[in-house]
Amino acid sequence: MSAEMNKIPYKIYLEENEMPKAYYNLRADMPIKPAPLLNPGTGKPLTFEEMQPIFCDELIKQELDNDTQYIPIPQEVADFYKMYRPSPLVRAYCLEKALDTPAHIYYKFEGNNTSGSHKLNSAIAQAYYAKQQGLKGVTTETGAGQWGTALSMACSYFGLDLKVFMVKVSYEQKPFRREVMRTYGASVTPSPSMETAVGRRINEEFPGTTGSLGCAISEAVEVATTTEGYRYELGSVLNQVLLHQSIIGLETKAALDKYGIKADIVIGCAGGGSNLGGLIAPFMGEKLRGEADYRIIAVEPASCPSFTRGIYAYDFCDTGKVSPLAKMYTLGSGFIPSANHAGGLRFHGMSPVLSELYDEGLMEAIAVEQTSVFEAAEKFARVEGILPAPESSHAIKVAIDEALKCKETGEAKNIVFGLTGTGYFDLVAYQKYNDGEMSDIIPTDEELQASFAKLPKVNA
Amino acid sequence: MSAEMNKIPYKIYLEENEMPKAYYNLRADMPIKPAPLLNPGTGKPLTFEEMQPIFCDELIKQELDNDTQYIPIPQEVADFYKMYRPSPLVRAYCLEKALDTPAHIYYKFEGNNTSGSHKLNSAIAQAYYAKQQGLKGVTTETGAGQWGTALSMACSYFGLDLKVFMVKVSYEQKPFRREVMRTYGASVTPSPSMETAVGRRINEEFPGTTGSLGCAISEAVEVATTTEGYRYELGSVLNQVLLHQSIIGLETKAALDKYGIKADIVIGCAGGGSNLGGLIAPFMGEKLRGEADYRIIAVEPASCPSFTRGIYAYDFCDTGKVSPLAKMYTLGSGFIPSANHAGGLRFHGMSPVLSELYDEGLMEAIAVEQTSVFEAAEKFARVEGILPAPESSHAIKVAIDEALKCKETGEAKNIVFGLTGTGYFDLVAYQKYNDGEMSDIIPTDEELQASFAKLPKVNA
Repeated sequence: MSAEMNKIPYKIYLEENEMPKAYYNLRADMPIKPAPLLNPGTGKPLTFEEMQPIFCDELIKQELDNDTQYIPIPQEVADFYKMYRPSPLVRAYCLEKALDTPAHIYYKFEGNNTSGSHKLNSAIAQAYYAKQQGLKGVTTETGAGQWGTALSMACSYFGLDLKVFMVKVSYEQKPFRREVMRTYGASVTPSPSMETAVGRRINEEFPGTTGSLGCAISEAVEVATTTEGYRYELGSVLNQVLLHQSIIGLETKAALDKYGIKADIVIGCAGGGSNLGGLIAPFMGEKLRGEADYRIIAVEPASCPSFTRGIYAYDFCDTGKVSPLAKMYTLGSGFIPSANHAGGLRFHGMSPVLSELYDEGLMEAIAVEQTSVFEAAEKFARVEGILPAPESSHAIKVAIDEALKCKETGEAKNIVFGLTGTGYFDLVAYQKYNDGEMSDIIPTDEELQASFAKLPKVNA
Repeated sequence: MSAEMNKIPYKIYLEENEMPKAYYNLRADMPIKPAPLLNPGTGKPLTFEEMQPIFCDELIKQELDNDTQYIPIPQEVADFYKMYRPSPLVRAYCLEKALDTPAHIYYKFEGNNTSGSHKLNSAIAQAYYAKQQGLKGVTTETGAGQWGTALSMACSYFGLDLKVFMVKVSYEQKPFRREVMRTYGASVTPSPSMETAVGRRINEEFPGTTGSLGCAISEAVEVATTTEGYRYELGSVLNQVLLHQSIIGLETKAALDKYGIKADIVIGCAGGGSNLGGLIAPFMGEKLRGEADYRIIAVEPASCPSFTRGIYAYDFCDTGKVSPLAKMYTLGSGFIPSANHAGGLRFHGMSPVLSELYDEGLMEAIAVEQTSVFEAAEKFARVEGILPAPESSHAIKVAIDEALKCKETGEAKNIVFGLTGTGYFDLVAYQKYNDGEMSDIIPTDEELQASFAKLPKVNA
């Protein structure tokens, strides 16, 4: 091992001048574009003007832009990136040794910033465009808390107000996430609150409710659209978010190229698709342009299997059914996944970009159960040192499985996966695993069929 | 700012081949050596043989070695370091801009590993020497939990058993720290326990006690000395720990040298001295050899001011008075600091190496109150992105003060400070600060005099 170690370092860091100067817009290279968002009232594609009360102008342009291949990263955003990027591409020498595999395993580690995840990559861009537009502030919702933390850091940096609606049960059970957001100056309100019309209505209708992401989205959108100088920002699913997250894949590709390494398999966890879409972008681009081939694998929780058991249809992005309609792999916006600790993967739908690519057979998807995910997480932590987030550990699980297949076949494949974040705020889940109290609950076919039956009529 | 940014990057990373190959033993360059540890029974210097039942042989050699200037880093330890080192030396461009200071501020960030602090640097070395000696396992105590976490990662890596005695109140109030240690395979026992003679005695004498670090040390030492194939390991104060932590300073110096930067002021927080001793080692070495001059500042909490209000005398290292005697700046081993959230700085004494240097006037010390520390922490977090540990924030506070002095005088001094770790497990303290419920309690002169009166007779 030692001779090779001298060639490829444990961690490949790009120099500042090797960092990407522009985001890569994968849609420009897609022969079939992702389906547009629809206005649920009219059933017609949402226009720039219809989106303007909700989103920042520049972000709407990015959302609708299916043609521009590279979109420059603004200098102020690039300067912020320098504080925590380039993130390291790590050669998992110790994991390879522990698995006794001939495979070479690499992971792109996005947890080296205070938000603890890749979410900051898009948060800082979105905050920048809001500031550029002269806005006073923005609103958002947060469940597990990674996105809310990231956006609070970004807004603090640009001096923007931020109002976060945090699902009430998380607000109460995850006080630490809440305090990080407050430390960065965000106001954090448990949702449903009495501050919005929709919040008051829900509180009245369901007394004692602990909230949901759908409800928090509705409250955040209401405040954004009814407060002078505010807009709403979202951390996943949207095309603009995948665009910003392409920095993950661009850096990964540049780091591999620097050492002449050709990836064979690229693996990422998939919730709404922000990390996966960003990681695979340049690899998928080469594949679409016929320049290279890669196996690309999305990993999702068996408790919320949008790709592997969902259907490709128009659906609401939120459980409250107030959002635009997106064409995507979905379990139905009314689907409530069983308690799975990977909060960031508990989303019923999937990015329209990734949904289109999956539908065309350009990528694979695998659903894994959470006890096997935590087993992989623990194995990884013990040899590689990093305590991974449960979300990220879905990718670890499949990377290990692929590396063990290489052991059987004797192939020295290059396996690359995205390690999206750290598990410091997920220790309640680790405790359940350590105590042997974690279980796997997967939806029945009947549940899914009942959920599909409620999809919006526009699909008919 | 932009032109200069092109010269010095936000983060200076060393290449793998630029990383230190040996630890630097500052004691070799000290004309007056630190005073030896004494056997409290005989009042005479502890011998190798007396230490052998407690510590690993190689670590005792390092503890007693005042002469060897450089001690090679074993290859296995160097390989482990590659997973999380070199840690970045960050140019705090955003903090400088926020303070509008001509000073150049740099910080060495040691929080980029799962233990969340610099403690891992010594933990991996100590675990390695235990493994080399053919031991089955080691024991330790932990209060705030950083050291216990670091040692659990290190022992997991080398396949050693680890038994951690965790102060009962922390065990109950910091379940997340406990779960990280368990995830890395350590057994964690709340102290005082019923598993040791000393634990049973204390539980009987003080029913319902929530424990103390002194008691946890006593339990860990008892298990180490009465279990075949076990030794005890400690994360601060000792000479061997400062030796391992010299990697912080060596990397910092190498990164500065790479860009031709001469530090004017070097600042570190001081609890037992492990971080400060490591950070300043090569700078103090040059100072002792007459090659360069630096202002070196230790920052301690006003609630536990060993340097600024303690006396230089022989004292026990633990409150249970079972440890050897060390000559150090101490508040008295019976001194109980008021609740200060920087758990890692709540130690009554100080490293004998640093105590000797301070006594000779080779470094300064400043005591700061914790509300001002959290104010500095929040300011730093908002512009530099990293959520700092309360301990580290003591150094931030003084670095900011020095930078503001430069603003008054117009001097472009190079200020270097140690950012020892992250505050993910300290959010109860941040919450108190956010809610305006944090207070500053400093000991009275009467309290300190009463504590000094109980120092061991060997000083008479």
